Amino acid sequence: VSGKFRNDLCVGVLGGGQLGRMLSAPALGFGVDLAFMDADPDAPCRSLTDRFTCGSLLDYDAVYKFGRACDLVTIEIEHVNVDALADLEKAGVLVRPAARLIALVQDKLSQKEFYQAHQIPTAEFAAVDAPGDLARYHDWFPAMLKLRRSGYDGRGVMKLNSPADAARAFDAPALIERRVDFIREIAVIVSRNPSGEIATFPAVEMEFHPEANLVEFLFSPTRLDPAEEATAQALARRVAEALELEGLLAVEMFQTADGRFLVNEIAPRPHNSGHHTIEACVTSQFEQFLRAILDLPPGDTRLIQPAVMVNLLGAEGHAGAARYVNMEKVLAWPGVHLHLYGKRLTRPFRKMGHITVTAARLDDAITLARRVRDTVRVESNNE
Amino acid sequence: VSGKFRNDLCVGVLGGGQLGRMLSAPALGFGVDLAFMDADPDAPCRSLTDRFTCGSLLDYDAVYKFGRACDLVTIEIEHVNVDALADLEKAGVLVRPAARLIALVQDKLSQKEFYQAHQIPTAEFAAVDAPGDLARYHDWFPAMLKLRRSGYDGRGVMKLNSPADAARAFDAPALIERRVDFIREIAVIVSRNPSGEIATFPAVEMEFHPEANLVEFLFSPTRLDPAEEATAQALARRVAEALELEGLLAVEMFQTADGRFLVNEIAPRPHNSGHHTIEACVTSQFEQFLRAILDLPPGDTRLIQPAVMVNLLGAEGHAGAARYVNMEKVLAWPGVHLHLYGKRLTRPFRKMGHITVTAARLDDAITLARRVRDTVRVESNNE
Repeated sequence: VSGKFRNDLCVGVLGGGQLGRMLSAPALGFGVDLAFMDADPDAPCRSLTDRFTCGSLLDYDAVYKFGRACDLVTIEIEHVNVDALADLEKAGVLVRPAARLIALVQDKLSQKEFYQAHQIPTAEFAAVDAPGDLARYHDWFPAMLKLRRSGYDGRGVMKLNSPADAARAFDAPALIERRVDFIREIAVIVSRNPSGEIATFPAVEMEFHPEANLVEFLFSPTRLDPAEEATAQALARRVAEALELEGLLAVEMFQTADGRFLVNEIAPRPHNSGHHTIEACVTSQFEQFLRAILDLPPGDTRLIQPAVMVNLLGAEGHAGAARYVNMEKVLAWPGVHLHLYGKRLTRPFRKMGHITVTAARLDDAITLARRVRDTVRVESNNE
Repeated sequence: VSGKFRNDLCVGVLGGGQLGRMLSAPALGFGVDLAFMDADPDAPCRSLTDRFTCGSLLDYDAVYKFGRACDLVTIEIEHVNVDALADLEKAGVLVRPAARLIALVQDKLSQKEFYQAHQIPTAEFAAVDAPGDLARYHDWFPAMLKLRRSGYDGRGVMKLNSPADAARAFDAPALIERRVDFIREIAVIVSRNPSGEIATFPAVEMEFHPEANLVEFLFSPTRLDPAEEATAQALARRVAEALELEGLLAVEMFQTADGRFLVNEIAPRPHNSGHHTIEACVTSQFEQFLRAILDLPPGDTRLIQPAVMVNLLGAEGHAGAARYVNMEKVLAWPGVHLHLYGKRLTRPFRKMGHITVTAARLDDAITLARRVRDTVRVESNNE
């Protein structure tokens, strides 16, 4: 049912960050030359192609011009000019995921309304056009307030504990979410190709850094029982089907105390919660993404070994040229896999890379991952 | 004992073929930007860096100039100008593996004399400066005749069955090897860093294509018993130590009917016989090579799943722009991993890529690999 293998496609990627960087390994294997576009002339993908375009992803003309030179355009970040993508589609360029899907995901309110319209369980929410609207929801506190647009990596999200917090709320369209009593946060990566073939990866379980609101720690397999795992995977599949996804989707979910799964957020691209698949699964999320947008059959998603992923975040108090303290030490430990993102400059909590730890038993991987986290530091030369 | 991790080194690679291409994935992870040099402006690495230099690897000035702009120079093919490398060493550029080691390997006679000097078991041999010298070795027939220099991928090797064959022997310095009664051909990849840390990968077993004299099929684990496996690994380690290797070395060996292991050939770089390590081992040969030349501790070499590697060779009767027949079909089979080399043009027996098949059991992987080999074809558009 899937399409024919082609090795002569020019695939343009909007965004030249770490996701694009990690996409390049399977792209090489599939004989696909990638072109990247990023506003940062020093982006992580800058030096790994002879086709790097420097330009704003939000600029209609820049995106349209970049896309016109490609056979297929995709994204590694969703904050891109979707009007240009829609017009590229009209001009016959393949855009995967589709412009309408990216537009939907860009607006957290439209995401939530989509879940509602498709009976996809999610936390109760309401639109908050201006901070004054919050007065109606004091009985929801403590609650989460999320900017409708441009939130990313923990930015654009705040917790409202009291009406006093509401006074310093975002002065932009947002949504308020009723607090979910969750016991676990997980993610399922799902892919769907234009021929409709779907595959899901085993779920991953997350632990967040308390200050930075970034995933610090992630492991797979999760501690879900097989029935729960099946429920989570079926939910991810339902979301992909409802969206008529052409590509890869990370579906972040809460597992509630009463055993339900609620969709929190989605990202229509490779995602931090799938990095461990490079070492842990037969097929990585990056290869799966590529297979999906090329309309090739999905790869085998089975877990071959337990894995824990640790983000390498810039240390507090350090900004400037990055240096990696004790890296040679952890590289001597069996099962330590290093992925730096090629960012020259560090700053506090900046995602500079990640380390995946694999072991025959999950508990051993977790123990080793904690040692890695406590040992490696990303500092700057000019302290 | 190993060196300090650095993420600011410029590593120059002589050669821009598939080995350099596959080296780029771990280089990204380690934050190392690679520069490549190759005589072919259309080389597999051409588009995966913004630092590709087109030039002859045998040209002193070109190699020296390329190397001077790097902190560390390495190779992905051993047919390079070693005088330039020796002078780069004198100028303070790190050259790993060392120029003297590459020079030794370039000459098959000096390789054999080195084994002899270090009591490393190898097939009996003699220098053949000119075809006339062969008259002395008629009692060795059938024997192998190998050019001392520039043999590669089955070129520069011929079988001498009778004095009649000797009449069409190479008219260049060569060596004759007495026939080895072997039951199995294997390889062990070994790494050693400048600090002296050594690691070996589990052995791999090879099957050759009868016509092309190219490895067609390779699997790991081998069918060696544990004692034999230990003997083979110890031998590879001895070769690396004797050479004072700084880098990675593929040691190809014959296992004789009477249970000995004889070193056949060595290659001081990632090698076709280690491609399966990308999926099969905790650390790939490419990452191990990078760790070794950067003087980082060796990674974990354990096998995590059985694997079979199938070379994708250009089909006979086809020359021109490559197309991959039935590729979408085999990509649907679980455990099929595609590695194309980015070569636009195919020709009979050209190495266009490889496919690694993984499975929980070796026999299943072998069965599937045979199906892959019988299904995929590399043809050209202009038949």
